[in-house]
Amino acid sequence: MELHIVIQGRKDLANQLYQQLRDSIESGRLAAGVQLPPSRLLAAQLGLSRKTISDTYSRLTYENFLVGKIGSGTFVNTLSAQPQRSSIRSDLASQKVVRKWQDISLPLRHPTLEGTLRCDFIGGATAKTQFPHDDWRRCTQYALRQMSQARGFYSQPEGVAPLRHAIAGHIAFARGVKCSAEDVVVCNGAQQALDLIARVLIEPGCTVAMEDPGYTPARLLFAAQGANVVSVPVDEEGIIVDGIPENAHVIYVTPSHQMPLGMPMSVARREALLEKASRIGAIIIEDDYDSEFRYEGRPTDSLQSMDRFGVVAYVGTFSKTLLPELRLGYAVLPSAILEAVIKAKQLTDWHTSTLPQWALAKFISEGLLNKHIRRCHGIYAGRRERILARLAGDLSPWLEAIPCTAGFHMAVMFKVPINLRLLVELARKVEIGLYPLTGFYHSAPTRDGLMLGFGAIETLDIDPALDRLRDVLEQIAWQSCTAR
Amino acid sequence: MELHIVIQGRKDLANQLYQQLRDSIESGRLAAGVQLPPSRLLAAQLGLSRKTISDTYSRLTYENFLVGKIGSGTFVNTLSAQPQRSSIRSDLASQKVVRKWQDISLPLRHPTLEGTLRCDFIGGATAKTQFPHDDWRRCTQYALRQMSQARGFYSQPEGVAPLRHAIAGHIAFARGVKCSAEDVVVCNGAQQALDLIARVLIEPGCTVAMEDPGYTPARLLFAAQGANVVSVPVDEEGIIVDGIPENAHVIYVTPSHQMPLGMPMSVARREALLEKASRIGAIIIEDDYDSEFRYEGRPTDSLQSMDRFGVVAYVGTFSKTLLPELRLGYAVLPSAILEAVIKAKQLTDWHTSTLPQWALAKFISEGLLNKHIRRCHGIYAGRRERILARLAGDLSPWLEAIPCTAGFHMAVMFKVPINLRLLVELARKVEIGLYPLTGFYHSAPTRDGLMLGFGAIETLDIDPALDRLRDVLEQIAWQSCTAR
Repeated sequence: MELHIVIQGRKDLANQLYQQLRDSIESGRLAAGVQLPPSRLLAAQLGLSRKTISDTYSRLTYENFLVGKIGSGTFVNTLSAQPQRSSIRSDLASQKVVRKWQDISLPLRHPTLEGTLRCDFIGGATAKTQFPHDDWRRCTQYALRQMSQARGFYSQPEGVAPLRHAIAGHIAFARGVKCSAEDVVVCNGAQQALDLIARVLIEPGCTVAMEDPGYTPARLLFAAQGANVVSVPVDEEGIIVDGIPENAHVIYVTPSHQMPLGMPMSVARREALLEKASRIGAIIIEDDYDSEFRYEGRPTDSLQSMDRFGVVAYVGTFSKTLLPELRLGYAVLPSAILEAVIKAKQLTDWHTSTLPQWALAKFISEGLLNKHIRRCHGIYAGRRERILARLAGDLSPWLEAIPCTAGFHMAVMFKVPINLRLLVELARKVEIGLYPLTGFYHSAPTRDGLMLGFGAIETLDIDPALDRLRDVLEQIAWQSCTAR
Repeated sequence: MELHIVIQGRKDLANQLYQQLRDSIESGRLAAGVQLPPSRLLAAQLGLSRKTISDTYSRLTYENFLVGKIGSGTFVNTLSAQPQRSSIRSDLASQKVVRKWQDISLPLRHPTLEGTLRCDFIGGATAKTQFPHDDWRRCTQYALRQMSQARGFYSQPEGVAPLRHAIAGHIAFARGVKCSAEDVVVCNGAQQALDLIARVLIEPGCTVAMEDPGYTPARLLFAAQGANVVSVPVDEEGIIVDGIPENAHVIYVTPSHQMPLGMPMSVARREALLEKASRIGAIIIEDDYDSEFRYEGRPTDSLQSMDRFGVVAYVGTFSKTLLPELRLGYAVLPSAILEAVIKAKQLTDWHTSTLPQWALAKFISEGLLNKHIRRCHGIYAGRRERILARLAGDLSPWLEAIPCTAGFHMAVMFKVPINLRLLVELARKVEIGLYPLTGFYHSAPTRDGLMLGFGAIETLDIDPALDRLRDVLEQIAWQSCTAR
């Protein structure tokens, strides 16, 4: 690879070279310690004599910009002055940014990435210490071998065949989803599945209905695509079907484990939803993000398996069963929109990286996913029981859980008025991460609550953490008493 | 993980279970060979007695739907009738698909994936046999270790810091791009970089100007996003700047190696383009897809490094220097649109999978990318010289190359009228893959030509392949003579 230097015309060659190298070093473009090409190679590249190059190197060495190391070459001196690159760019471009993207109020950093809290009740984080790194390494080795036999070209936009088969088998078995491998499109997590489905269904001004409270990143995505997102309230049975506008094109729901409140959608509500969608000609996106973990009661059918009308697009993910940073998810699509979604996938990023696809296909087909889910199921069940026991015990004056049967978070509501901001702040001081439900509401919430995730927190930390939570609650109550 | 069975009410339990298991097997949802859960576990899951389960298993075994294997469990019988799942879905949903996605005329299969041609002049395929699998495996091992130390949560939307630093260093050194790690956003290949930039800049009805002929997947992407894509002709210096409409929001160009014709954009044209973009307030997307491979003349500056106005978004990829199926690329963005693009990335798929990001960061920082580029450079240079020698020799009555200095494809134009379809067909019969330029034109091409890629074809295969091409050309000429 070449060092980028541009020589113009045939005059003043040595000085042109000198100035460019010096500018590059001073601006930091050539960082301290970087090796310069041998004079012979640079001479050939630039069409200059070798003497011109070595003279220039000598001059820069004399001026302390470069340093020669005998036997190994010429390097940018670590002692040379290297001011920060100063940007001369104007803000011209900012006028052109479509405002809806600029104005999205999305935290660019995840809270857990900012620091480390000993006891973090964040949602969406998996039991990291349980991840079977050795099995995954073995499957990745297998994937590397598969890759070395591939053709050095692009793969299929819909995903590699063994993974689509493995996914179809997994969800048919575990979730009763009616599909074959041909209906499955592999995506970079559930978020991309939502993006692709919305892209082929939504035009600016289209109405999208979704649960309120609901999954905020989905709302932001649909809104950024130009949709008119209508918030539909939920009750203890799930989305209130009568609240869905008749002109909705797309209805986004989380029937197995309502995000964030947690209750499953009742069978009657599911049937009403399917009937309404088919009547008004809407597509339902069923986001089944963590239903592999189910703890009590009998399982309910997925909307997709109840669908007689071909209106359900089913979205799943391995972010909850494995790791979010793998970015592996999928959509099971009604035949009518399948081809359009595959085209959207191809134009968006051609296909998902093949290495993790092959690794996951192997991981599922060897039964390792089932094994991992079983193990995590036991762990999450234990954590969940601990939290429920405390909510039924010493925390019962303050908090109550919304009944839910699946996943690894639950919603708890305050029985008394509380200064939520103060609570979160005081809890953080004693190393407890708490996350209010507020961020999931579009309309004003009628009650305050918390999302208690139990993926990131270790089982043995739950009781001490809830002790401290109770102490903080008592402290706030005491202060507000004495203040009155 | 549970087998998905839904039991309703308290009546007729055994029969409900029997019917569902039988339906699942008959429909193929439970495939031949799949193991059923032990009766104890299924009983606990469904809240039924163990006897109900084992009686049902016995009945299905008697009917040959199941088969018991002593000591290992109960399995779906491979002999049971398993008709193909019949879809009952209507085409209701198809009415809802936004037509622009449905109607995209994009081949869902890549030509090379359909069969194997011994000598394939396809563009965009890398020298697969050269890929340093051992080095990549070692870097992937390193990446697995990094992953095992991560927090089991999402990563940053803009990419992991070591990779952004490595990319900034690489393109500053090799392409003179003025940037720091903070300006870099890691994407799933260049295609996603185009998608994200276009998303934050284009609203339906916006005008996008691009080269004609040009990179068709970019055109399809912009059009699918609702842009009014205006085709601007190119001459031997590149895009004709006066042809760019004054109302263009975005200008997409390939200055180092015009896609598909191959000539570099002249310095005068680059300056005129930058001046015009800043005057009309347009953003230029500079797609620098394969400029790491440069063979002759002095290098020219990238548009990004000449940009005094902050109007250039620079897009690069590792699909050409490494492998397309890795899906790793990047954008270097003017500060004014950087944050909007990072938000778009987050809402689109949160972030690129971390495993290949860590692996690539290691690969670059150890100098392995430079080493690989140097090796491939030598190989591509040899192949290119072979093709140019033949074009100057026995193929000169038929074909001439468009002068280009970089990349691993060249465009060749026919000096005589030719039946292109017949040529491609006859060549395919003798195991030569040829690809007309037609697909890259939006307006009608004035001359016929071929894109000759030399990434996929082995050096020693080039001469025999071109011998056969000459034979086919002679055969067609002879036939058209005798036909007259």
